[in-house]
Amino acid sequence: MKRTRPLSLGLGNVSQADLEAAPDRTPRAARASGLDRSLCRALLRAAGSPPVALRLWNGEVVSTADAAPVATVVLRDRGALYRLIRNPDLHFGDLYSVGRIDVEGDFVALLEAIYRGMGHLHGNALVRLRERLTNRPRVNTLAGSRENIHHHYDLGNEFYRLWLDTAAMQYTCAYYPDPAMSLEQAQVAKLDHVARKLRLKPGDRVVEAGCGWGGLARHFARSYGVTVRAYNISSEQVAFARERARDEGLADRVEYVLDDYRNIEGSYDVFVSVGMLEHVGPTNYGTLGDVIDRCLAPHGRGFIHSIGRNRPGKMNAWIEKRIFPGAYPPSLGEMMAIFEPRRFSVLDVENLRLHYAQTLRHWLERFERNAGTIEDMFDPFFVRAWRLYLAGSIAAFTTGSLQLFQVVFARGADNELPWSRAHLHPQA
Amino acid sequence: MKRTRPLSLGLGNVSQADLEAAPDRTPRAARASGLDRSLCRALLRAAGSPPVALRLWNGEVVSTADAAPVATVVLRDRGALYRLIRNPDLHFGDLYSVGRIDVEGDFVALLEAIYRGMGHLHGNALVRLRERLTNRPRVNTLAGSRENIHHHYDLGNEFYRLWLDTAAMQYTCAYYPDPAMSLEQAQVAKLDHVARKLRLKPGDRVVEAGCGWGGLARHFARSYGVTVRAYNISSEQVAFARERARDEGLADRVEYVLDDYRNIEGSYDVFVSVGMLEHVGPTNYGTLGDVIDRCLAPHGRGFIHSIGRNRPGKMNAWIEKRIFPGAYPPSLGEMMAIFEPRRFSVLDVENLRLHYAQTLRHWLERFERNAGTIEDMFDPFFVRAWRLYLAGSIAAFTTGSLQLFQVVFARGADNELPWSRAHLHPQA
Repeated sequence: MKRTRPLSLGLGNVSQADLEAAPDRTPRAARASGLDRSLCRALLRAAGSPPVALRLWNGEVVSTADAAPVATVVLRDRGALYRLIRNPDLHFGDLYSVGRIDVEGDFVALLEAIYRGMGHLHGNALVRLRERLTNRPRVNTLAGSRENIHHHYDLGNEFYRLWLDTAAMQYTCAYYPDPAMSLEQAQVAKLDHVARKLRLKPGDRVVEAGCGWGGLARHFARSYGVTVRAYNISSEQVAFARERARDEGLADRVEYVLDDYRNIEGSYDVFVSVGMLEHVGPTNYGTLGDVIDRCLAPHGRGFIHSIGRNRPGKMNAWIEKRIFPGAYPPSLGEMMAIFEPRRFSVLDVENLRLHYAQTLRHWLERFERNAGTIEDMFDPFFVRAWRLYLAGSIAAFTTGSLQLFQVVFARGADNELPWSRAHLHPQA
Repeated sequence: MKRTRPLSLGLGNVSQADLEAAPDRTPRAARASGLDRSLCRALLRAAGSPPVALRLWNGEVVSTADAAPVATVVLRDRGALYRLIRNPDLHFGDLYSVGRIDVEGDFVALLEAIYRGMGHLHGNALVRLRERLTNRPRVNTLAGSRENIHHHYDLGNEFYRLWLDTAAMQYTCAYYPDPAMSLEQAQVAKLDHVARKLRLKPGDRVVEAGCGWGGLARHFARSYGVTVRAYNISSEQVAFARERARDEGLADRVEYVLDDYRNIEGSYDVFVSVGMLEHVGPTNYGTLGDVIDRCLAPHGRGFIHSIGRNRPGKMNAWIEKRIFPGAYPPSLGEMMAIFEPRRFSVLDVENLRLHYAQTLRHWLERFERNAGTIEDMFDPFFVRAWRLYLAGSIAAFTTGSLQLFQVVFARGADNELPWSRAHLHPQA
């Protein structure tokens, strides 16, 4: 069934220029000039000369790598090349989404090759200068956050249901202690891993900042005998979460609040946030620390799970513009702005980077299986854009461009701490 | 047997003024003035009014806390009070060392009360300003480091043998998965915990930065079939370590190098450093990162174990002056200056704060048992100073003033990572 939203994925913002020169309107036989070929080579070199071939609209192939190409990027028209040159980070995604760029071969391998190539450029002084100049995360105001979250998370529960895990609809990194696990198993394993890190015990009052479709809150209430108050500013998600809690008879133990984390009230034994920090923005980390300080009991346990970076750096421009407006994955050092000013004590950090790549593989596989249905819901541009986003995210995690940090913390003076982390691995 | 060192613990630097007014030279009956009592109250309030009593030279007792005092600080003369007022962080230690201050009651509980009281002052703007102004760690040059390390670690192996674990003479935090463990058990447990974190396998080439008496290197070579090159700038420690390695038939697999970590050469599968970072100083973290980047193989595993802080802050002035010149325990955020510029990926952080308190309890107990022998080796001032240092360190760890971070890291692009941390807890 076709959704009636006017925009799919914000691609209504794609300029007419992107759509104008659709492949079939450009004569494929148009000759490529020496300048075109030079630009292609410059483009590849700017990406660190990855083992990737560029095929032009007339069939010519350009490559700057010695190694055999892992995949071929097909440029359907000259305009696509020119746009790509101007801002590859941003325009590759838009041009791919509208079909003016295609990929032949292994899409994830292609994106991994590009990420790796660009990683090798890191030592380059110009690249570092550009990183510094452009690494200015935007400020997420209360209203701005609502708009940004609506953009992504209110695409429709029926859409996310097609490719997330069926059990709890978790749109965050799963935990694969065994990589052969199913997505459903790994998402439940994640919830139990987090519960163990938080040393949940019956009667604990839990507050959750950014609860998605509420799966963690219901699982904690059902399996650990705690009560949960969960905050989220996505109205579609909260409506779904409340309905599920009612259906599962958990409405007396789980409360979903349609509000911003900054408005959290009350006192809690546990603060938990899985996959929200990416949307908070570094300028608000002090505020988040204040919220936690306000609401965490003296022996309270805290937990934050977030996409991150090995060093500060902006989100890919296209992802930030089209997929996740306002998103910013922090480095561990940047995350400390939440904890250090309030003397919270970081007890445990675990990096689950490869677990997110594995989660995304499962998501992409289900997404592709349902691509026809999703195209009917939205349009072909949407399907292509999301394919790129999911494949690109796999590549970002496998190449180390993105990390996944789980941080356990407590108040600085709290001595009610376990003597080891053996409880995290009960079957080990 | 009396040691012939001219200084014991640098206390030769204690000014004559500290010694002049030794308790028995001051008439105990000298009246205390209203000013004296006011100064005492001001001193206690500046420490956050801990549940501590001050007893003056004439027997009068002053306290500003409502709670019953956990212990009493005895000021033997008026001059001691005046010196204490001028710079309590620095002079408390010196005055206690020379006996112009005494403590009656539980020494550790007293120091914990003071740490807690000062922790409560943290919100105070003046205190924070003072922290900022005085938090300028000194620069450790190659020659300066050698002098600083000599000051502490070359006090004589026979001294350390009296209170460290007998198995490996480890002067770093042990690991107590069960707090009932003996010091010997917990120190071996630490080495195995670190070995598991590093996923040691036979044939691995290990480099160790700052190896103490070489216990880790020998244990790794003996139990894990690796070869270790271990760097240390303390000549007494290196001589001891070499002798032990020869005695244990490990000389072909363990090499001790009397040199600075900055001069590490070669390529290694494993970089490990336990208890050296405290002596490196933040201005050298970039250099340390460069050393690791230079010597770590592409799939190399890295590990740093260090005393730290929940937020940046200087070492206690007396400890830094008398016990550990040049020492600086970093916050996690500060530690990131080692990793982030080189895109090392932090995989795991574990905070073992309470394990260090437990380790120190064992050390202090053995130290007290051998206090007579140690006084014969040095002098009574030395024994008092070290009692204060060990007890104060227990209090710093139990109150959260100090942390103990173990950080596992790898190169950013390395995907040869375990799928869980279950291997760290084989008996769990």
